[in-house]
Amino acid sequence: MTPEEFRSAGHDLIDWIADYRRELESRPVRAQVAPGDVARAFPAEPPDDVATIQELLADLDRVVVPGMTLVQHPMHFGWFPSNASLASVLGDLASSGLGGLGISWESCPALTEVEEVVCDWLRRLTGLSDGWSGTIHDTASTACLVALLAGRERATDHGQADGGLARAERPPAVYCTTQAHSSVKKAALMAGYGNDHLRIVAHDPETFAMEPAALAEAMARDRQAGLLPAAVVASVGTTATTAVDPLPAIVEAAAKERVWVHVDAAMAGTAMLLPEFRHLWEGVEDADSLSWNPHKWMGTILDTSLFYVRDVQHLVRVMSTNPSYLRSGVDGEVTQYRDWGIPLGRRFRALKLWFHLRLDGIEAIKDRVRRDLENARWFENQVRDAPEWEVVAPVVLQTVCVRHRPAGVDGDALDAHTLAWVERLNSSGRALLTPSLLADGWMVRVSVGVETTEHAHVEQLWSLMQAAATDRSLDPDSMVHIDS
Amino acid sequence: MTPEEFRSAGHDLIDWIADYRRELESRPVRAQVAPGDVARAFPAEPPDDVATIQELLADLDRVVVPGMTLVQHPMHFGWFPSNASLASVLGDLASSGLGGLGISWESCPALTEVEEVVCDWLRRLTGLSDGWSGTIHDTASTACLVALLAGRERATDHGQADGGLARAERPPAVYCTTQAHSSVKKAALMAGYGNDHLRIVAHDPETFAMEPAALAEAMARDRQAGLLPAAVVASVGTTATTAVDPLPAIVEAAAKERVWVHVDAAMAGTAMLLPEFRHLWEGVEDADSLSWNPHKWMGTILDTSLFYVRDVQHLVRVMSTNPSYLRSGVDGEVTQYRDWGIPLGRRFRALKLWFHLRLDGIEAIKDRVRRDLENARWFENQVRDAPEWEVVAPVVLQTVCVRHRPAGVDGDALDAHTLAWVERLNSSGRALLTPSLLADGWMVRVSVGVETTEHAHVEQLWSLMQAAATDRSLDPDSMVHIDS
Repeated sequence: MTPEEFRSAGHDLIDWIADYRRELESRPVRAQVAPGDVARAFPAEPPDDVATIQELLADLDRVVVPGMTLVQHPMHFGWFPSNASLASVLGDLASSGLGGLGISWESCPALTEVEEVVCDWLRRLTGLSDGWSGTIHDTASTACLVALLAGRERATDHGQADGGLARAERPPAVYCTTQAHSSVKKAALMAGYGNDHLRIVAHDPETFAMEPAALAEAMARDRQAGLLPAAVVASVGTTATTAVDPLPAIVEAAAKERVWVHVDAAMAGTAMLLPEFRHLWEGVEDADSLSWNPHKWMGTILDTSLFYVRDVQHLVRVMSTNPSYLRSGVDGEVTQYRDWGIPLGRRFRALKLWFHLRLDGIEAIKDRVRRDLENARWFENQVRDAPEWEVVAPVVLQTVCVRHRPAGVDGDALDAHTLAWVERLNSSGRALLTPSLLADGWMVRVSVGVETTEHAHVEQLWSLMQAAATDRSLDPDSMVHIDS
Repeated sequence: MTPEEFRSAGHDLIDWIADYRRELESRPVRAQVAPGDVARAFPAEPPDDVATIQELLADLDRVVVPGMTLVQHPMHFGWFPSNASLASVLGDLASSGLGGLGISWESCPALTEVEEVVCDWLRRLTGLSDGWSGTIHDTASTACLVALLAGRERATDHGQADGGLARAERPPAVYCTTQAHSSVKKAALMAGYGNDHLRIVAHDPETFAMEPAALAEAMARDRQAGLLPAAVVASVGTTATTAVDPLPAIVEAAAKERVWVHVDAAMAGTAMLLPEFRHLWEGVEDADSLSWNPHKWMGTILDTSLFYVRDVQHLVRVMSTNPSYLRSGVDGEVTQYRDWGIPLGRRFRALKLWFHLRLDGIEAIKDRVRRDLENARWFENQVRDAPEWEVVAPVVLQTVCVRHRPAGVDGDALDAHTLAWVERLNSSGRALLTPSLLADGWMVRVSVGVETTEHAHVEQLWSLMQAAATDRSLDPDSMVHIDS
């Protein structure tokens, strides 16, 4: 494709995207397809003819769009906000258009240095000290793996340089609560710790936050039993309820045991743009690493996961490579991001953040985050005031965890009721919610924060939930009735 | 940013990219900036005002473009081809515009199923059997780590479910040659094997290909010594010289030891689009995993690394997670790509491949690859016919490894001469080459394969190299003289 063909096709695609985003709200939130529907629309053999952009856009409309669950839809309250701001889409397009290759500073100096700049901007915007150095990973899962590798190697005095884990004198161990993200267990297993050495620390039954005394006891007991406490993952905003593990006590306990503290603020990091919420991660300055995802609530498009460390040398010592074909005259003077993470090659991801911050403006982003917090608070109050409804966890940020409990319904019957009404709502396509297990019972997470979700959408959701839970019609016409 | 603001800014950006690509050839190949130049052009504090797209495009021109080393430039012969075809740029834009979230099949059915379709298309296009299942990773480094994790767990009977590597009865070991990509060692260390258990197998001094007898001996000796041979990484196209490890003998030796065979064809996979080159990976059907990067020579933009496995259950068993908030009614019927790799969340990467294949057409892509192979062969012949020049490794594909050896210059003096003339050429901005160590001496890799590199560019490169190596002027006007 020549630049002129690209120009023409690109204009068509830009228009298609603008139309798609404009009309998104008229579509069902959850994809209305069955397994295999999308794949069956494609030929098994790769076509050997050439298609026009118009043909591909028609295919997108016919096959791909019906197979999209619309997380950009204002009635999406499932999983977590996964905003893909159009400003950041442009930044991503600029990155692709430039076609840079990040394998060393020399292979694309701008890619490295703009990443340094925007990571530092985000550091300042979230009130972190200049003792942190940042990079962009694809996801918080990868960030967690990198943190557990760094913790493993620091604890074992860099055993990877010799006999590796199999020659470790004492098995290193990782600590977190059951409320930690699923990626923590996955990372611990991938890093070779073993499931037996992933130690589950008790959490407060009301707040779902880690009990720091239990952490200290677990580490001391393990050390006595011949294990080597290596890393603790503290959540600032857990997946299920956005619970906040108490960092000051955790970093204090970890310091005594010389254990790596990784702070997972994947979802909640966005709230740290607001000074009034930064008390939630008080103590973070004494952690070793920290990750949060602008690609969630803040809305810089996937994959944009920020990862900060106090001492970069811990990453470099674990992950540096320096093959001859990548050496250059400036080695030692410049940042080589390949030594800070798993992949060698990287895209110019910093442009997504740069364009997002500059085109939307940080004040507008903060205003939107405050709007979402207010909407969540309003919704919480409705639920608290409604008979037969309950809020089942503290509302820390924009996630409200609720249950509809009709009189006399409990245990398995309550679980069945919960899953049934959520599925009824989700399958209607009118809104999307995510049920989740909490303390052995199913509850429903209402995660507010899509860019286009205004107060009226939250009001509408509340009407829909009440209708779904009480078997009333979800039909738009009846909704008017219910709203009134 | 509203859809209408996006429409307007998007058209401007598309035009900017079309112009940038059209005029690329007039710019220096290597960025002419010093460390810190790019970063210094940005304010330390994040700006709190809002910028227009015109202001950002002006910043791209003023700050970012001068800091780009232009791997899309037709005179780029460094590292490896890192093509970013404009057709795939559009596919990437479609992905960003759609804003899908891949954390489960349900969160975006189309994302999962189109990935299945295009991975299967590429499987057919490279002549692989239907015994392979494919996915897209960011890079071959990540693919290698995943393969070494799967090999580690298969060999240790899934020790991660219990005590992990520290409780392994015998330390698992990994095998490769010194010619393997740097990511193999990095992956082995991250996976916890330890440097002592990364076993370097001898290679043929002429072809730089693994000696399979040495592999068999090393595994048998290690087993006797109490190690557990777990995985071998065979390269089809090494980084330095595109050497090809002999797969038939390697898979045979590995089968005897029940060792995981991962085939790294990151660069060379593109050549497998051509039936006449598939003999290079004869034996691949008996490997366990395989990766190659359409984001290199084929030109689907970064990050598009294909990863195929024979038995997906080996991945799922090592990397699956199933937290309650991701459960759905179709679990078991559908592919959950989160269980095939490290990150939980994924972009809709398949669109890049789909758009590239459909808009450019597979025949045109194959014609271009054949052109590059012919250009490399022509260049090789020039070097072979020229006095004082030598080709230092077999030319298997599109990489020609050369040295200029003036009479009487040898050893350290030859290395200094090599590095000096390459730097002279590279710093001129007129072409880019990568020096690399081979058998303890510096040589120069000429990696042909940029989308826009025609025969005339390779001719020009040859003139420039001769001039650079003999201290003649690299000035364009003198070039005419040299060319004639």
